Amino acid sequence: MKYASWTNGLDESFLGEILKTANHKDTISFAGGLPAQELFPAKDLKECFDRVFEEDGSIALQYAEALGYSPLREWVSKQFFSSGKARKLDEIIITTGSQQGLSLVAQTFIDPGDIVLVESPTYLGALQAFQGYRPRVVAIPCDKNGIIPHELEKILRKCNPKFLYVIPNYQNPTGKIMSLERRRELVEIARKFDLLILEDNPYGELRYEGEALPNIMDMYDKVIYLGSFSKVLSPGLRVGFLIAEEEIVRYIERAKEGVDLFSNNLTQHAVYKYIVGKKFKEHILELRRVYSERKDIMIQALKKYVDEEVQVDTPKGGLFIWAKIQKMGDSCQFLKYSQEEKVIFVPGTFFYPDRRISNEMRINFSCSSPEIIEEGVRRLARAVHRI
Amino acid sequence: MKYASWTNGLDESFLGEILKTANHKDTISFAGGLPAQELFPAKDLKECFDRVFEEDGSIALQYAEALGYSPLREWVSKQFFSSGKARKLDEIIITTGSQQGLSLVAQTFIDPGDIVLVESPTYLGALQAFQGYRPRVVAIPCDKNGIIPHELEKILRKCNPKFLYVIPNYQNPTGKIMSLERRRELVEIARKFDLLILEDNPYGELRYEGEALPNIMDMYDKVIYLGSFSKVLSPGLRVGFLIAEEEIVRYIERAKEGVDLFSNNLTQHAVYKYIVGKKFKEHILELRRVYSERKDIMIQALKKYVDEEVQVDTPKGGLFIWAKIQKMGDSCQFLKYSQEEKVIFVPGTFFYPDRRISNEMRINFSCSSPEIIEEGVRRLARAVHRI
Repeated sequence: MKYASWTNGLDESFLGEILKTANHKDTISFAGGLPAQELFPAKDLKECFDRVFEEDGSIALQYAEALGYSPLREWVSKQFFSSGKARKLDEIIITTGSQQGLSLVAQTFIDPGDIVLVESPTYLGALQAFQGYRPRVVAIPCDKNGIIPHELEKILRKCNPKFLYVIPNYQNPTGKIMSLERRRELVEIARKFDLLILEDNPYGELRYEGEALPNIMDMYDKVIYLGSFSKVLSPGLRVGFLIAEEEIVRYIERAKEGVDLFSNNLTQHAVYKYIVGKKFKEHILELRRVYSERKDIMIQALKKYVDEEVQVDTPKGGLFIWAKIQKMGDSCQFLKYSQEEKVIFVPGTFFYPDRRISNEMRINFSCSSPEIIEEGVRRLARAVHRI
Repeated sequence: MKYASWTNGLDESFLGEILKTANHKDTISFAGGLPAQELFPAKDLKECFDRVFEEDGSIALQYAEALGYSPLREWVSKQFFSSGKARKLDEIIITTGSQQGLSLVAQTFIDPGDIVLVESPTYLGALQAFQGYRPRVVAIPCDKNGIIPHELEKILRKCNPKFLYVIPNYQNPTGKIMSLERRRELVEIARKFDLLILEDNPYGELRYEGEALPNIMDMYDKVIYLGSFSKVLSPGLRVGFLIAEEEIVRYIERAKEGVDLFSNNLTQHAVYKYIVGKKFKEHILELRRVYSERKDIMIQALKKYVDEEVQVDTPKGGLFIWAKIQKMGDSCQFLKYSQEEKVIFVPGTFFYPDRRISNEMRINFSCSSPEIIEEGVRRLARAVHRI
């Protein structure tokens, strides 16, 4: 069978194999990026679905517009302001999760060989979304505040990328937040080079300390912003949204028509009913409280059991801790010990576009109970001490 | 803004503009391909969603596998046999509607410039799904039984296409069924040239007369089959499926991970509950009864009001009548009269990859009541008589 040439680059899905071991009954998985299942507001969502069926069931079950359910888009327009102005309705399109947002942007902008800039390390799923369109991905070195401005500028002098992809809040995989100062520097450089920025913000609401920083789209016009209900409500419902200037949204809309016509209409109606209700804000507060506690427990456990071997920065939000263990060398190799001890994580390698050897790992704290976190870290420590 | 080069070919979405006039209160639309809204089993579906929430709500709201919900895939595997054998589970992947199936196949197989063969005319949405990957689309002439074998063979001697896309049952837009004889001839040629066939079957269950013919995948191995619950249950739920040999499904799975990770999990659970219940079969019988009656009423009205001007073949299934009106010349031009008379359809031009001038039009009969069908055809006749 002769497949499209982007598939040549596909490896054996080592990561897929890891994630499958997450289903082994005795294995503790810190590998996924899953919300805590027990916190899903299933009862309230059921009521919302019931109300949709009762109030406008047959409309919600019918074909619908590619742009998405208007009241949901209106809600988004009111939540997101640019320079103090609500966004126009035609600047918003609903996506099948924000993963689809990444894919639609890739399809709409990338010709084979085009350059796309990313943080290093970056979200693996974005690399997967982009790869089908065969860009050259260039990784920009980052420090603890995000993309290093002069490194970005150096690269922009040499090439003309289609866009720069960033996750400013509680980045996946590092958990880092891009500082306000850094955002300003980034925008200044973007202006200078007329650079399009793809701003992905799935974790912004999961803030455990500090004030919310302005979105990059609030500071600069040439931004495509991706939002998601996966982390604050439910990933199983696949509802996200994209905000950009009207012309871009028109092109994205055409791409979306080809890709899946429109996103699940019934679900859009139900999600809308949920988020305009009083419980949404309470639910987010609850997530913050529980996840923050789990994050603290994991940090403490790492310090207690893995000890001086591990270097971590405590994340101020999100779902992940990025841990570096000097003597581990290659975390892909280390994963084998770790799997024998029945605990798994995602090795750092996978988040670097160049798949470099890495002694880092991404550890998720959101979907395990405090007891499981303790036990998992104890197992991790046993694996470390076997090196 | 510099977009990907496939967007250069995008026209002004004339069709989008037509479809928007479908929302005008006084306009009768025969333009869409919508199921009858009043027949959606909303009450039964509500119960299914309720049961999912009660029985496994938090699992259904969580991240899930790209391949889809296993019990739903098992159901598909038992429904679809190749040479009398149930398909293996690893040969089935759930898609976000079968539109996504088209798009995933395009992404997985097409490099820019690759050749894709289609029927002429063919489903507009397939052309939209393919265009993002910039194939050269070659249209194979068809007669009343489907693709003309020697025309296909002539083209296959000259080029090496990635696949041939066909809708054998009650084709969109023509409503035609590919005869058994023709299916056999097609498969013989495909074998000879080792041609991959993409078989799209959204309308197969909407059969109003005659026996069901075997699927092409039952007669030949190198087939990717697309199925959908949009026409037999609800398009708003966006659930379809793809069946192919295991290797192909593995590649499609990787593409799907990049595109939207997985399809709405809650909905997959609920659709599964509905289709294993007793009411699914009854529901399909009801659809056949109502749509068949509407089809008859429309055919009679066309003969009665538009008279000798119109040439139609009565479709044996599906949602569409393909009408040719000699003196209409260009149906895009004619649409203007028709819009003035407050009735719309889709002009034939849009279903031809070369966008040729066409005196044909696609008229939908499924989503209008008998009274509306009568009145709409009367308006159409007034427009015809104005030519």
